[in-house]
Amino acid sequence: MESVETIIAKAFSAGQQTLSEYDSKRILAEYGIPTTLETVVEAHTGAEAAAERIGYPVVLKVCTAEAVHKTEQGLIELGINDKSKLKQAYERLSLKAWDLGGKILVQEMVRGSRELVIGMTRDFHLGPCVMFGLGGIFTEALADVSFRMAPLTDWDAQEMTGEIRSHKILESVRGLKAVDMEMLGRCLKALGQIGLEHPAIRELDVNPLIIRNGQPVAVDALVVLEKPQPEEIEPKMVTGGLASFFEPENVAVIGASSTPHKAGNDVIQNILANEFGGDLYLVNPKGGEILGHKVYASIQDLPDSIDLAIIILPAAIIPQTIRDCAAKGIMAVVLAAGGFAEVDEQGETLQEDTIRAIRDTGVRVIGPNTSGHTSTPHKFTSSFFPLGKIPRGNISYIAQTGNFATHTMSYIKSGEHFGVSRVVGMGNKLDVEESELLEYYAQDPETKAIFMYLESFKKPRRFLEVASEVTRSKPVILLKGGATAEGANAAVAHTAALASDDRIIDGALKQAGVVRVFDYSHLFLAAKAISAMPLPRGNRVSFLAPSGAMLVCMTDLCRRRWGLQVPDLEEKTRQYLQDISPPYIRMRNPVDIWPAAIVNGVEFGYREGTEAVLKDANIDAAVMILMITDETGVPSLDFIVDLAQRYPEKPLYVTFSAQKKHMEAAKAFLEPRGVPTFPLIEEPFEVLSILARCRQAMGRRP
Amino acid sequence: MESVETIIAKAFSAGQQTLSEYDSKRILAEYGIPTTLETVVEAHTGAEAAAERIGYPVVLKVCTAEAVHKTEQGLIELGINDKSKLKQAYERLSLKAWDLGGKILVQEMVRGSRELVIGMTRDFHLGPCVMFGLGGIFTEALADVSFRMAPLTDWDAQEMTGEIRSHKILESVRGLKAVDMEMLGRCLKALGQIGLEHPAIRELDVNPLIIRNGQPVAVDALVVLEKPQPEEIEPKMVTGGLASFFEPENVAVIGASSTPHKAGNDVIQNILANEFGGDLYLVNPKGGEILGHKVYASIQDLPDSIDLAIIILPAAIIPQTIRDCAAKGIMAVVLAAGGFAEVDEQGETLQEDTIRAIRDTGVRVIGPNTSGHTSTPHKFTSSFFPLGKIPRGNISYIAQTGNFATHTMSYIKSGEHFGVSRVVGMGNKLDVEESELLEYYAQDPETKAIFMYLESFKKPRRFLEVASEVTRSKPVILLKGGATAEGANAAVAHTAALASDDRIIDGALKQAGVVRVFDYSHLFLAAKAISAMPLPRGNRVSFLAPSGAMLVCMTDLCRRRWGLQVPDLEEKTRQYLQDISPPYIRMRNPVDIWPAAIVNGVEFGYREGTEAVLKDANIDAAVMILMITDETGVPSLDFIVDLAQRYPEKPLYVTFSAQKKHMEAAKAFLEPRGVPTFPLIEEPFEVLSILARCRQAMGRRP
Repeated sequence: MESVETIIAKAFSAGQQTLSEYDSKRILAEYGIPTTLETVVEAHTGAEAAAERIGYPVVLKVCTAEAVHKTEQGLIELGINDKSKLKQAYERLSLKAWDLGGKILVQEMVRGSRELVIGMTRDFHLGPCVMFGLGGIFTEALADVSFRMAPLTDWDAQEMTGEIRSHKILESVRGLKAVDMEMLGRCLKALGQIGLEHPAIRELDVNPLIIRNGQPVAVDALVVLEKPQPEEIEPKMVTGGLASFFEPENVAVIGASSTPHKAGNDVIQNILANEFGGDLYLVNPKGGEILGHKVYASIQDLPDSIDLAIIILPAAIIPQTIRDCAAKGIMAVVLAAGGFAEVDEQGETLQEDTIRAIRDTGVRVIGPNTSGHTSTPHKFTSSFFPLGKIPRGNISYIAQTGNFATHTMSYIKSGEHFGVSRVVGMGNKLDVEESELLEYYAQDPETKAIFMYLESFKKPRRFLEVASEVTRSKPVILLKGGATAEGANAAVAHTAALASDDRIIDGALKQAGVVRVFDYSHLFLAAKAISAMPLPRGNRVSFLAPSGAMLVCMTDLCRRRWGLQVPDLEEKTRQYLQDISPPYIRMRNPVDIWPAAIVNGVEFGYREGTEAVLKDANIDAAVMILMITDETGVPSLDFIVDLAQRYPEKPLYVTFSAQKKHMEAAKAFLEPRGVPTFPLIEEPFEVLSILARCRQAMGRRP
Repeated sequence: MESVETIIAKAFSAGQQTLSEYDSKRILAEYGIPTTLETVVEAHTGAEAAAERIGYPVVLKVCTAEAVHKTEQGLIELGINDKSKLKQAYERLSLKAWDLGGKILVQEMVRGSRELVIGMTRDFHLGPCVMFGLGGIFTEALADVSFRMAPLTDWDAQEMTGEIRSHKILESVRGLKAVDMEMLGRCLKALGQIGLEHPAIRELDVNPLIIRNGQPVAVDALVVLEKPQPEEIEPKMVTGGLASFFEPENVAVIGASSTPHKAGNDVIQNILANEFGGDLYLVNPKGGEILGHKVYASIQDLPDSIDLAIIILPAAIIPQTIRDCAAKGIMAVVLAAGGFAEVDEQGETLQEDTIRAIRDTGVRVIGPNTSGHTSTPHKFTSSFFPLGKIPRGNISYIAQTGNFATHTMSYIKSGEHFGVSRVVGMGNKLDVEESELLEYYAQDPETKAIFMYLESFKKPRRFLEVASEVTRSKPVILLKGGATAEGANAAVAHTAALASDDRIIDGALKQAGVVRVFDYSHLFLAAKAISAMPLPRGNRVSFLAPSGAMLVCMTDLCRRRWGLQVPDLEEKTRQYLQDISPPYIRMRNPVDIWPAAIVNGVEFGYREGTEAVLKDANIDAAVMILMITDETGVPSLDFIVDLAQRYPEKPLYVTFSAQKKHMEAAKAFLEPRGVPTFPLIEEPFEVLSILARCRQAMGRRP
């Protein structure tokens, strides 16, 4: 038997861009993927002999490297069940085969009502990716597919088969045998392997993969070839040394300004407001003094061993400034200026010059076009957006844009009670990018959870490798902007046509344990929740509400939208809730707490009810929907803080059906004491849904 | 040919509960649904003759009223393409047919790769409902189906075929002909007709309905029979006279209390706080005076011609109290007491006594177990939850529970700036229920939009009839609690098995133009938006943001989640936006407004930008994401009020990326002046998505 390499080499010498069905399947068979019995025949007598050997009914197909859409072109004769039919079919097809320079393929007829599609496509960034989905006529119409990067683990194969909408047809439906999932998983992993081992295979489609008696059989296959391009080796840039950004001993502001409200002044104000403990050096040709600090006339005049420079200068002089910094031994800089590739051609040239300066000098760069970064444990920020003192906490952000170092931080600071640890607005990411930052945050004891806003990945494969590790110990929550842009769909094969950037990246992120969110607000709502409380151990929620309507609606949404369970309580819990409630109400999960509150007081009802469910072994997290109005009573909320402290292993969130002033007061009281509150009753559940997914990602098998 | 009635009658006399495939299809054919060519034969020779007539290949099936799952039982022989195969197949099946007391059906073999399912099931409340969806092995596994009540309009047929997830397979896919949608629509309407005209048909399944060359053909069919039960005629209750609840001239509180914080006292406080203009009479055996009003010792002592009584008395004496009211000519009462059927058996008996009292007297009743109702144009409320003065507005609520007359109203009053017109907490709905209220609100000039929270429909068919009319002129927005409960799935036929309450009601609500929401919060967020602004004319949105990340994320969500378009602007608009912005940014929709704001001032940027998109013929609604921080500037917001007034035909909503205090101040300034604001940036879009659906419902064809 010819090796895969030989098959490919022969095809290239024949000038083929695709392999024939027969050759495509020989490759599949080599990797253990079950294929149809089949033979290429030269003459009618050969066809007869083949059909006898294979057993009727058989299928005849025109077999050529060119015949890509055989059904549409009438190059297939199905269900041939005797010699005479075979003869007629052979005659019809051989004429067409002659036209196309092909031969005739005699193939066993595989019957099965479940048609799947599996395939491999080579993503520009991520390399070979494997697809699984519903095949046959549904392939494009339903686009019910999932992707994973190669190599696939068993866990990946299991997840990707389970995540298509139609996954139930893999089970025993309509008297059909359940699909052999182990075998299916093996096929998917094999496709990944083919992609990894044969760079000349650009795409591979198996469509349909028919399920016969529970077993997958590749009934048609197409391999698309492309001579592998020698990999463009990007000149290696220096990495490491991020500590200079996050823990600088001393800092220079190049382009310091004495004019209030200018970036070169605001950045100094911010540094002072945050009580930076190191030395601060200012540079401006005018010299003099700004805000009590001496101003040096040039970089050369600065003292030695400065860790970090913040450069607030016009784009045009950035490359030279980087070289000047390097000459002075400053090996980390933040570039605030815009006006690079994001603007025009001139900016592009400037950007190239800047990259060259970075490469030549080994200086590490955040930006350009960044609004800065923040490191509260070090009492430091390079943000030039006037923020004042930034609250310290355990949440770290990595953002493509400056929002989290500017106006969104301004909102968080003024409207929420959680703080941040490290925040970077990466701007144009000429050097420091998300995967290196993620690696740094992963090791950072000050960072409990990592929130990211990205529009692109600078080094996607590297990012996913890093994320894959980080997410086993810290939650990584990503909002990926630009998600609806579809990839090109002029591709030859189905797999490539269905491989929109978003579908591929979605699969890869799941593989890496990164939890995607789609709401901008979740970047601070979930942050608030995770900042104060542990992750839930699972997705089993209990909640206490003052109204039947809220109980019903939130239970509906837990099931329908949030993937949260509202399980039965332990009997002793249920009994206790019953004991504190009037007899006319049957207590269960979720907890209708108002009757108990009326009978025993608001505080008693909520306190006892919440403690009961926090104790319950069936419950991973609790949400309290507090009713506080002047008329129904305004309890002291100390009991909630006390509960949160006594049950530190389970998240407890508070939301309201209350008068606005009491909601505000409760927030102001509870949040600084470690209990997150949410104005709308859906919000704590949305957040729990995100955090339960983070926990699940932590527990995924390697 | 036998009539449908004869076929059914014969089946009943034979003791059948189902019709054979052959008989089922005769009924379909009678209603113009294309079916397979087929003949029931008695002997092998008959089969041969039939096959010749029909043309090979044919299918043989065992035909009996008992054979429900023929494939699973091996009662079908497919793809018989000659005499000898026919003979063998006939022999195999005839034995089984003999066993089952059936005959052999010779049928044309229909080939087509698209298998649909259509069916009819009789809903207990809604009568015959028609199903459409993906058939064959996908039927239960994907459950990709939609329902509509009979009779169906063309619009209904078009909507229900378009709303399944797999609807694309109806188009021209994979070289297949597009499905003849008119014919498919005719089949669906015909099923509805069968259901309406033949009450003995409980269920009807056509599965598969195969698409052959674009044309639907019923390949298998099953009719399930049931002797129609004589319809239980509920004793007719009086309707009408709701004006006594909403516009009472004078009111009696039966069970008035002098003790503060008791319901019988709070209700009086509420009536006084709302400055009710009519006479207020109090009843309590103790007599005396409460809050400056004389107290009558009994109902009998009251003066004549009282319009409405609010009864705050224990459940046990409610039936007698209703009779006492009637005796005094009080023909409308609100029953606050709980303790009826929602509690226990004793309560059930009491509830029956109450119904009898209502029927005997013709007294109209809201409740029992209601927290009251409100009618602000009449300065009246019967709520006993201490609310004080309830703000007047144009939003009306119908709620199954009391929330909107109690704590949720307390939140709205304290946290939002819109007012209400009519609000009813229906409680146990012994008499007044949602369809009658909906009818009243429809006519009510004080009501602009109707928001409902329901857990059940008292008269579903009536409700949908009324809603169907109302929604053509006023938005009706419904949160239906208890939506995840699935119907019984032990049904014989597919249609019934898939007919969960929620799927059926979902289809029926769409037919009626009712817009469903699932978030409790939307009941006041959407209300706030609709209260101040017109409905958008369509779903084309423009928005202005101070940040690229927000532009990208909201555009993604508009497409992915909200069904909103973010269309190109007119060239003149685009040009104007470009003129007011720095040259380095390319302006378009959505609008990146911050560069213009930096160059020309925050107010100028937002004002000019917003006016430009409001003027644009391609835009139906605009959202302004305002950046207001101390540092970037706090403009006067008069210009927003001015814009809203000058473009009254397009909704304009405001949300923020701002410091909390400025968000609060903007809300306090803008909302009383008619511009709704939303704290989270997703919220105005969520609301627009709901309102665009309301507008679409208004424009649906009859």
